[in-house]
Formats: sequence, structure tokens, C-alpha cells
Amino acid sequence: MTVNLTSDTVTKPTAGMLQAMFAAEVGDDVFRQDPTVNRLEATAAERFGMEAALFCPSGTMTNQLAIKCHTQPLDEVICEEKSHIYQYEAGVYALLSGVSVNLVRGNRGKIQPGQVSAAVKGRQDWLPVSKLVVLENTCNKGGGSIYRLHEAQAIITEARAAGLSVHLDGARLFNALVETGDGATDWGAAFDTVSLCLSKGLGAPVGSLLMGPKDLLQKARRYRKAIGGGMRQAGYLAAAGLYALEHHVDRLKDDNARARRLGETVARLPYVAAVEPVESNLCIFHLAGTQTAEVFLDKLSDKGIHGIPFGPQTIRLTTHLDVSDEQIDYTIRVLEELA
Amino acid sequence: MTVNLTSDTVTKPTAGMLQAMFAAEVGDDVFRQDPTVNRLEATAAERFGMEAALFCPSGTMTNQLAIKCHTQPLDEVICEEKSHIYQYEAGVYALLSGVSVNLVRGNRGKIQPGQVSAAVKGRQDWLPVSKLVVLENTCNKGGGSIYRLHEAQAIITEARAAGLSVHLDGARLFNALVETGDGATDWGAAFDTVSLCLSKGLGAPVGSLLMGPKDLLQKARRYRKAIGGGMRQAGYLAAAGLYALEHHVDRLKDDNARARRLGETVARLPYVAAVEPVESNLCIFHLAGTQTAEVFLDKLSDKGIHGIPFGPQTIRLTTHLDVSDEQIDYTIRVLEELA
Amino acid sequence: MTVNLTSDTVTKPTAGMLQAMFAAEVGDDVFRQDPTVNRLEATAAERFGMEAALFCPSGTMTNQLAIKCHTQPLDEVICEEKSHIYQYEAGVYALLSGVSVNLVRGNRGKIQPGQVSAAVKGRQDWLPVSKLVVLENTCNKGGGSIYRLHEAQAIITEARAAGLSVHLDGARLFNALVETGDGATDWGAAFDTVSLCLSKGLGAPVGSLLMGPKDLLQKARRYRKAIGGGMRQAGYLAAAGLYALEHHVDRLKDDNARARRLGETVARLPYVAAVEPVESNLCIFHLAGTQTAEVFLDKLSDKGIHGIPFGPQTIRLTTHLDVSDEQIDYTIRVLEELA
Amino acid sequence: MTVNLTSDTVTKPTAGMLQAMFAAEVGDDVFRQDPTVNRLEATAAERFGMEAALFCPSGTMTNQLAIKCHTQPLDEVICEEKSHIYQYEAGVYALLSGVSVNLVRGNRGKIQPGQVSAAVKGRQDWLPVSKLVVLENTCNKGGGSIYRLHEAQAIITEARAAGLSVHLDGARLFNALVETGDGATDWGAAFDTVSLCLSKGLGAPVGSLLMGPKDLLQKARRYRKAIGGGMRQAGYLAAAGLYALEHHVDRLKDDNARARRLGETVARLPYVAAVEPVESNLCIFHLAGTQTAEVFLDKLSDKGIHGIPFGPQTIRLTTHLDVSDEQIDYTIRVLEELA
Repeated sequence: MTVNLTSDTVTKPTAGMLQAMFAAEVGDDVFRQDPTVNRLEATAAERFGMEAALFCPSGTMTNQLAIKCHTQPLDEVICEEKSHIYQYEAGVYALLSGVSVNLVRGNRGKIQPGQVSAAVKGRQDWLPVSKLVVLENTCNKGGGSIYRLHEAQAIITEARAAGLSVHLDGARLFNALVETGDGATDWGAAFDTVSLCLSKGLGAPVGSLLMGPKDLLQKARRYRKAIGGGMRQAGYLAAAGLYALEHHVDRLKDDNARARRLGETVARLPYVAAVEPVESNLCIFHLAGTQTAEVFLDKLSDKGIHGIPFGPQTIRLTTHLDVSDEQIDYTIRVLEELA
Repeated sequence: MTVNLTSDTVTKPTAGMLQAMFAAEVGDDVFRQDPTVNRLEATAAERFGMEAALFCPSGTMTNQLAIKCHTQPLDEVICEEKSHIYQYEAGVYALLSGVSVNLVRGNRGKIQPGQVSAAVKGRQDWLPVSKLVVLENTCNKGGGSIYRLHEAQAIITEARAAGLSVHLDGARLFNALVETGDGATDWGAAFDTVSLCLSKGLGAPVGSLLMGPKDLLQKARRYRKAIGGGMRQAGYLAAAGLYALEHHVDRLKDDNARARRLGETVARLPYVAAVEPVESNLCIFHLAGTQTAEVFLDKLSDKGIHGIPFGPQTIRLTTHLDVSDEQIDYTIRVLEELA
Repeated sequence: MTVNLTSDTVTKPTAGMLQAMFAAEVGDDVFRQDPTVNRLEATAAERFGMEAALFCPSGTMTNQLAIKCHTQPLDEVICEEKSHIYQYEAGVYALLSGVSVNLVRGNRGKIQPGQVSAAVKGRQDWLPVSKLVVLENTCNKGGGSIYRLHEAQAIITEARAAGLSVHLDGARLFNALVETGDGATDWGAAFDTVSLCLSKGLGAPVGSLLMGPKDLLQKARRYRKAIGGGMRQAGYLAAAGLYALEHHVDRLKDDNARARRLGETVARLPYVAAVEPVESNLCIFHLAGTQTAEVFLDKLSDKGIHGIPFGPQTIRLTTHLDVSDEQIDYTIRVLEELA
Repeated sequence: MTVNLTSDTVTKPTAGMLQAMFAAEVGDDVFRQDPTVNRLEATAAERFGMEAALFCPSGTMTNQLAIKCHTQPLDEVICEEKSHIYQYEAGVYALLSGVSVNLVRGNRGKIQPGQVSAAVKGRQDWLPVSKLVVLENTCNKGGGSIYRLHEAQAIITEARAAGLSVHLDGARLFNALVETGDGATDWGAAFDTVSLCLSKGLGAPVGSLLMGPKDLLQKARRYRKAIGGGMRQAGYLAAAGLYALEHHVDRLKDDNARARRLGETVARLPYVAAVEPVESNLCIFHLAGTQTAEVFLDKLSDKGIHGIPFGPQTIRLTTHLDVSDEQIDYTIRVLEELA
């Protein structure tokens, strides 16, 4: 049996999604003439109670367009040191936006109360101008940690008091919302902009949405075109996104539950030193003794199970649309046998 | 009858192409695990006799990645003043690469002999460093003009003598090759990098290829990921590109022939002051008297025929995969009736 | 005898200027506590009837700060193709501001009526946004050409009609004003920002001023600090600038007259094919036959006279504070002997 | 009595230094023809045993040119989170170099053993490329902390093992060397590039030096010109720098000793919660109770003594060339009276 737990980006469309894709009506989206893209953008914006949305090839692009639209060169972005924009986007905010980060050290990737207020800089010619706060929910490197709505709102209150804008990197936002039961519109109302990935747990092959005010998204659309993110008949991809929003949101609960099962298993294993709390679809654990992540992953791999290293002795296993209960059962058996 | 002559970007997949897309095997291309993307890249590289290829969401991205890979900030790109990279890519080379253009004025978008040698700058602290020459074939704003291979080679010889790299913006390259009979490998051999659009005359919904040396493309791949151009299960789009390379290259002759018929027609019309030579699939003409492009295009539009303005009194009509002989017949009748 | 006609940047302070420099009261200008810098900025702003001024290490910095303050990344600057910002500032507007140029071809570096209106671009996602027009007076590569005030005003009217800002690269502005008799305040009133070099014909050792609205200059001050242009006890340099504004403006007429004498001389020489009109302190001429600039400059150099090449067969001779009538007499004799 | 303890940037030239400036022989440094600048650059390079040096208007410029020369866009700079380049240079590395920082948390601004090795990133398309380590000695925000040579060397060994370059922000390097007795050439030998401020404790009015390999400095020189840091007759400023290197290095011991006296005093005061170890010319202490830095500095200011806030309840007092023993005696009396 093969179990691919490397990332929730590896999912492939279901039969229903494929069907939807190839029935899609398309047009030239650079001229805003693709009806399916237009429908996806309208649907997503409505779901979050936001004015508009923009379909992009990736979550990196939606996050970076947001940063670009909220900042000027020499501004700074306040974010937690585990956040995806700092860790996994090649530092491209420097190149595209001419901005730097002002890192705060929170807990499991989550900014703590008071940290934004303390981080905001006064105006001096030699200081970056604090301009934007970015939260990530769930936070990948934070172990799939989840912000409660009131936690996010408290941070946003600090940000607004200092005149800052607020962007949500919601690559895996629905993995959080299905757990907390918070409404998407509450999250949309709290932030200036929200990005949402369709190609992670939601299972669409390609794409991410940036949502926010109309005029900001008009700027984002131009930057998207300029950096080469304008696609022509993108409706085939958008159709998958529409399908995912309709059919694949609630089932993220199953992914989260399966990751929890993995977490409960490894917590009992002698070769595991510690397990991060499993809040969503990521199970992260640290190996005991001197065993390296590389060696351990090789052993798993020999059994057809694939994870990724998240540190010299740290393993990340990710559940997603293409991982079934049977595969989890099998994985648990293998993990136990490795003891 | 509706005839969309606005651009060859508006084409929609044929039934055969859709079938190929639907049947595509996919994977996560960010991890290089999409077999269809891999096959498209290998196929295209082989077709042009180049080492490697990279699939991107757009032609703007392939051109800009090429510029990024060939230059350092404060370098300059020598190009003709009608070239797409200067005219239609939002000046994003400045933002992404920190480079400026050194414009030469050629003929119909084509650089003339001696112009590159004359344009190359000496090394001084206050001068941009000349680093890259970009040719465009066919040249859109040049009226679909075609470089003969020996013309391009002569320019390249000048460039190489000055130590410059050479990139070909081949968005519509096959529209040229089907006319001249030049081999794709001859063009591949002549340039350091070549970009090729799949979503213009070739009729794929989305995508463009950058071809060149392996190590340069490795850099390009990283920049692609950084600016958000890394797509996950991109194989659905790549399958269309593969189909296009197999089935839609030769038929570009028909597009060119149809544009020529339009050119011959308007050349005889009293309200047309001049027609640009029709070398490929673009027919560009200038209105006589005081009639504006806007007014004229409205008249055409009333008859279901759509073109675009290319200047205050200039019209561009573009033929492509979705334009049939019947539609051209109809268009000719309408153009004559408007006399 | 040695006659340095290479550039008006080579001047050395007069005894009076040196005296003023070393009597200067200074402070830390990064904290705005240098009284001499503050006085220079106030004096210059008042002279041009502008709100404020900023002292910088060079004219490149004042021009580039102006571009930075007037634009956003992906905007474009409309300028003549001979302008200093395009030709001699290493294309750094791309790096610092993320902007490109929209080049117009005027006459001797001067934009012609109608050219700005024609150059302004409509708003499309794929086009740079036209944002700023830059004029240069006198225009160096234009042969020291001079804009009349009404000429500049006509261009500015076109720019304002399109919503653009207007910057004057006035590196050698006073060389023009002493000829035309225009008032500095008229030029200040016409433009949003003006840069003025103190270290060219005016004879100060270092420095340039950017003048304009207070809030814009506050931004410019921050960018100046960020790129490393904030100097501490800069009052020693500023004192020279103050002295220059008081004592060296009117005498630019002499420089212009001396350049004219050189122009009249070379116009009669058999080995000179053509002379550019001498409007200010630059005399530019083209050699007849096959003599190269390099060979000719070597001959001059043997006689102690130094100029620079301005093309393969073109020579530029520049008059300035440190060139006397006697040196011009000598130079004329040598030029005639070389016949 | 007035005692300016705000910064060591506020010093004014001594009579001897002014004399040296006044007597300087100058030329056009953009053409490398200023003999005094050339002499300063050669002298400094020799002092540190490095190939070459470049004179710049500020320490921000020398640091940023170093970063620019060592990196490519999307690289990252590893530095301590208190370092000047991260804290006080407006985040301009993002704009000028397109790079981000990889922050490590050391001790008093000093990177600890193992931290560089742990921080270096593997090569993935989505990660910044680790390229440069920057140390700062003494570290300003670290409280004027001093690296011992062997401490720096150990970090450099880690950096080199990972293929990284190493830059020293030596704005106040001599404040460290006079304490440790290390040789300047040992520090020069250990790093790829070193920047050294002349306008801080050394007492020159303007300027900083970047030292390193010839070819790197040639690149730095071009970038300096491009961003507007090329000055014409800069010899007047360079003469002050030469004077400072000859006469003002050893006396930095006095500044350090005076700061220590301040530190010993405040350590005994009831209103002081803690004093940072005084290693060089900075005395930093934290107020007890609820007294704010602002209120306390106002009280000092009423007595003619000026310091700066370094946090809500933190004070920084800086000794320098223009602060005498008498002024320190007076300051100590005032500090005691405030008890």
C-alpha cells in the first residue's frame, strides 16, 4: 500500500471534480471574460462576505499580492517567526515589495496578545514603517495550530489601533473553521484581505484566491498580470475550485480526525520523544535518541509511507483528500511495528 | 455570425484537446512529480534541440524569468522599441530584475544590422551594463513581422561579439516557422533561451514554455516558485500544450493565409489609408480620413465582428484556431459593405 | 598650460568658498541639527519659491529621490531619449523605484509639443502607468540645449492634463537662466520638483539640492537616509553651496560665452564636419573624415588640453569656473594649429 | 553646562582636523582623481591588511553596498536580531538587494556558537538562499558589546563551512580593538568585507569606509555611483578621516573609560533597576518602578544633559570625542542628585 502523507498539495481531483472541470465554460480571463473564473471569484467573495476575489496560480502569489497591495517599499510586515510568508516563500516580499519583516516570537506560530502593539515602530527616517500584520490560520510550521476567532480579533484590534492593515494567510483556513465552527464571514469581516488555497486540503489541482476590497483587488489584478500570473482560459481550474468549495469543505473534519489518530498513536511509541498537539491535519513529532528524520523516513518509505522532515529529528505527516481510513490504519500498524 | 478577431489568446480547446486534458496523468509539479508537465517540458526541449524547458502560467512569466536569469540589477536589455517586453509587460523587468531597456528603432519591430553593435555600452560606473538582447518573432506590434533565420543570426553574431546573451520571445514563433520553413532546432541552436506560448495560435487554454540550458532553467524554476508561478497538478494544462504541439502547429499556415486574405481585401477598400504587410496572422490597417478606430470597431461589432484598436486610427484583426474560412468570408463581405 | 575641459564637475573651490566652508557652523544633519545645511535648504527653496529643499551628495541622488517620490513600482517616467536620467544614471530608477521609462524622441534632448500627450498610456493591466515627466535643462547630451520657459510650460500643460507630475533635472539650470533671463521662481512654480547641482558650474565641491513640496521632501529625506545619503556634519559642504548661490550664478554667463568662442572657432576648422549649436557651456563637434575622437583627444592632450569623447567621432569640451579667457585663447590657438 | 550624550555621531572636528581638511588637495573622485580620497582609501586598506577601500557618505551605505555585493535577490543574510542592519537601516536591504534576513537570537547582539550552522538553509525552490553572515562589533543595540577575535573567528568558521561570505559592520570597531588589543589586520584577515565609520567615535564630520577585495569594491563603487553616493571633491571629508585614523583611535579608550564611570555610577542609584555591562562607549540602563525614559530624559535635559531612550524605560548615554572628564563629573553629580 502507498500512503502519501508528504503534503496536502499532492491531492488529485476526484471523479466529480474532473467532471466539473471539463464541463466548464471558459473565456479569456485576462480580459475578465472567463465565466467560470468570474463565478468562482464571486462565490468565494460571497462566502466570506468580502467585496471581491481574485483567482491566482498559487498561494504564494495571493499572499505576495496582498503584501504588495498593503505596503510601500521600506515598510515592514509584522508576523510570527514561524509564518509561511517568512519561512517558505523564498523571501520574495523583499524583491516584489521592497519590504522587510518585523518578527515576533509567539506560540506555535500564533502571535500572542500585546506582541503587535509592542512591535509597532515609531516614525524615524532610519526605521521601517510598520504597515501590515499577517496571521496564518492554520499555521503550518506551528504544527497546524488554530487561531480562535477572538484570538485573531484581539490581535487585529491592536493592529488597527496602530493604523496597520491585516492580512490572513488562510491557505488551510477551512481546516480551522471546521474545528472551531466559526463562520467564514466572521473571518472575512475581521481582515482586510484573506487568501485561501484551493489546491491543499480542498483538493483542487491548481489555484488560490485572494479576497478583499474591490479597489485593492484591482491593484492586485494588475500586479498579477505584470508578474505573469494572468492565465487565459483558467476556467478549467476554477471549476475545480468551485467544486471544492461545494463538496470538500466539510470533509476536512475527516482529515483532522485522521491526523489526530496518528498523533495519538505516535504519542505512545517509545521512539518518539514528543508530539506536537494535533489541532488540524498535521501530525508533527520529534524522534527520541539519535535517530535522524532522514533515516526514519527511509524506513517508512520502505513500507510505502511518505512523510517529510521538519527538522533534523522531526517528522511531519499530513492527511488530505487522498488519504483514507484504511491507509491510516495501515500507517498506524507500520508505525507501531517500527517500535 | 460572431467572429472574434481580437486576439489569438481567446481560443478554446478543441474536442480532441479537451479529451487529452481529461485523460492526463498528474502529480505535484512543485515537487517535479507531474508526469504530463515533465513530458511537455521534455517534448518541447527536444523539438527545439535545447537542454530543458519550464512550463509557466503565461508568456509574460517566461519572458520575465528569462530576463531575470540573464541579468543582474543595473544591467540593460537591448530590444526594439516595438517589442512586447517593452510595450506590454507593464515594465515589470524593472521591478523583478532591476534592469532597464536600451531601445533601438528598427523596422516593423525587427532590429536591423549594426544596431546591436552600436547600442552596446562601454563600462562606466554611471552606465547600465549591456547584457541581453531580446528578439521577438513574430513581432506583434511590428504587425506580425517575421525574422528570417539569417537575419536573426546576424544580430546574434553582433550580440555574442559583445559578450551578450540572446533571448527569443517566441510567443508566436510557429506562425513564423510555418511560413519560412526554418527548423525549430535551428532557432533553438541560435539562442540562449526561447519562450513559446501555447495559449495563442496553438490553442491551449493556459501556458507558456521557457527553453534553455539546464542550469539557467533551474534558476528560472526557483524564481517561478518565488513569484507564485509554481502550480500543483498542472498536468491538465500541460496535456493541452502537448496536444497543441502535435496537432496545431502546421495549421497555423491557415491562420496566416486567412490574415493575408483580410489584408488583400482591406488594401482595396477606399476607407483604408494603408495596410501593413501581412506576414503572419495579424492584419493591421490604418483608416483614411478622420474615422477613428473606435467608431470603426463599433460598426464592425454591430455585425458581430470584433477587432481591437492599435492606435487612434489603426485596427488589428487577428486570425486563430477558432476562426474558419466561412467567418473570413463573412468578415470580408462586411468590410466591403462598410465601404 | 593645462586646460581641463572634460567636465564642469572638476572645479575646485575658490579661496572665498574655502574660507566660507571652514567657517561653517555644523551639527548632525541626520537629526536636522546642522544650521548651515538648514540655511542652504531654506535659501535654495526661497530662491525658487518652493516650499522646501533637501541637500544630497549628488545630482543622481536628487533625481532618483524625485522619481521615487513621484512614482510607484510599475509606473513609467516619460522623458526624452537623451535625458541624463536615462543615459547616465545606470538605469537605477529600475532598481530604486521599480519603474521603466517611456522614451520620446525630441530635438537636442528637448521634448516637442504634443509628444507627452501622445506618449501617455491608457490604463490596462499590462501597461506601465504613466506618472511622471522629467525635463532636463540645460540638456547635457542634447549639447547643452536650453528650454525656454514657455516651451517647458507647454509640455507641463500636457502633463498636467493627463494627471502626471513634472520634475526638472536642473543640474545645470542656472546655465540656462543666465542666458534666457527667466526667473528662478518661474521655473520653481512650473514644476512639482526641481533638482539643482551645486558641484557643476556653480563650483561647490559636493552636493545637489532637491526642491519641492514639504511632504514630498519628508519622504525624500527618509529615502535619502535609507540608501545611505544621510550625512552627519554636512555643513562644510553646504557652506560651499551657499557661497556658490551667492557668488557663482551670474558668472555662468562667462562660461557660456567661452564655450561659444570655442564653437565659433571649430566651426571654421577644416577637420570639423559639424558643430552643435552652443547654447550654454558645452561645445560639441563632429570630426570630418576618418579621424576618431580618441586620436584627436590624444593630440589635444599632448598640448595639455583635455576633453571627452561623445561618440566615435564626436568631441565634447566643457567650460567652467576653473577655465579662464587665457586658457580659452590658448585652446583656440591649439585647435587652429591642429588644422 | 551642556553635555550631549545622545550619540557619537554628533562630534565636531577638532582644530587639528579642521586644519587638515582646509589643507586637503582635492580632485573629482567620480573619476578617481581625488588624491586625498585615494590616500584615505589606501591608508585604511593597509591598516586592515585588505586589498582596497571605498569612501562613502555614511555607514548605512557601506553596509548596504556590502550586502548588495555579497548577495543576489532572494538570498538571505544571517544576522543577530539586535544588529544595526536589521534595526536601523530602514530595511533597505529589501529594496536595494531584494534579500531578506534570517534572524538569530544571540546574547547582547552577539551570535553564539552553533547558531550560524543551525540557521543555514538547504536548497529548495521555496527557501531563501543563505549567503552572508553579518556581525557587528561593537554592537550598538547590544549595549556596545564586544566580540573577542576568537569568538568572531568561530562564527566565521561555521559560515565558511557552509559556503557563506562574512561582513563585519565595524561602525565602532576601534572602540572594541582599543579594549581587546586585537590587531586591525587580524580582523581584516578574518572577514570578506569590513565597514568602518569615521563619523562616530573617530570624530570626522562625514563618511564611512568599506574595505575588501578589489573586484568586489569595483562593483561596490558602481553601485555607490548608481544610488547617488558618488561625490566630486570629497577630499575635504577624506582629509578629516585620515586625520582621525592618525589621531583619534587610541583616545577611544578614554570614551570607553568614561562610559564605564557612568555605568558604575548608575549601578548604585536606587532609581535604576539594572545596568547593561559597559564594554565600550555606551552606557545603557533600565529605570526602576514606573518612571518612563521620556520623563527621566526630560529631567536630565533640564540640567543640560542629553541622552536618548532605548526602550520604554531604558536610557542610552554615549560618550565620544566631545565629552570631557569634567562633563562626566558633572553628569555623575546630576545623576546622583536625581536619586
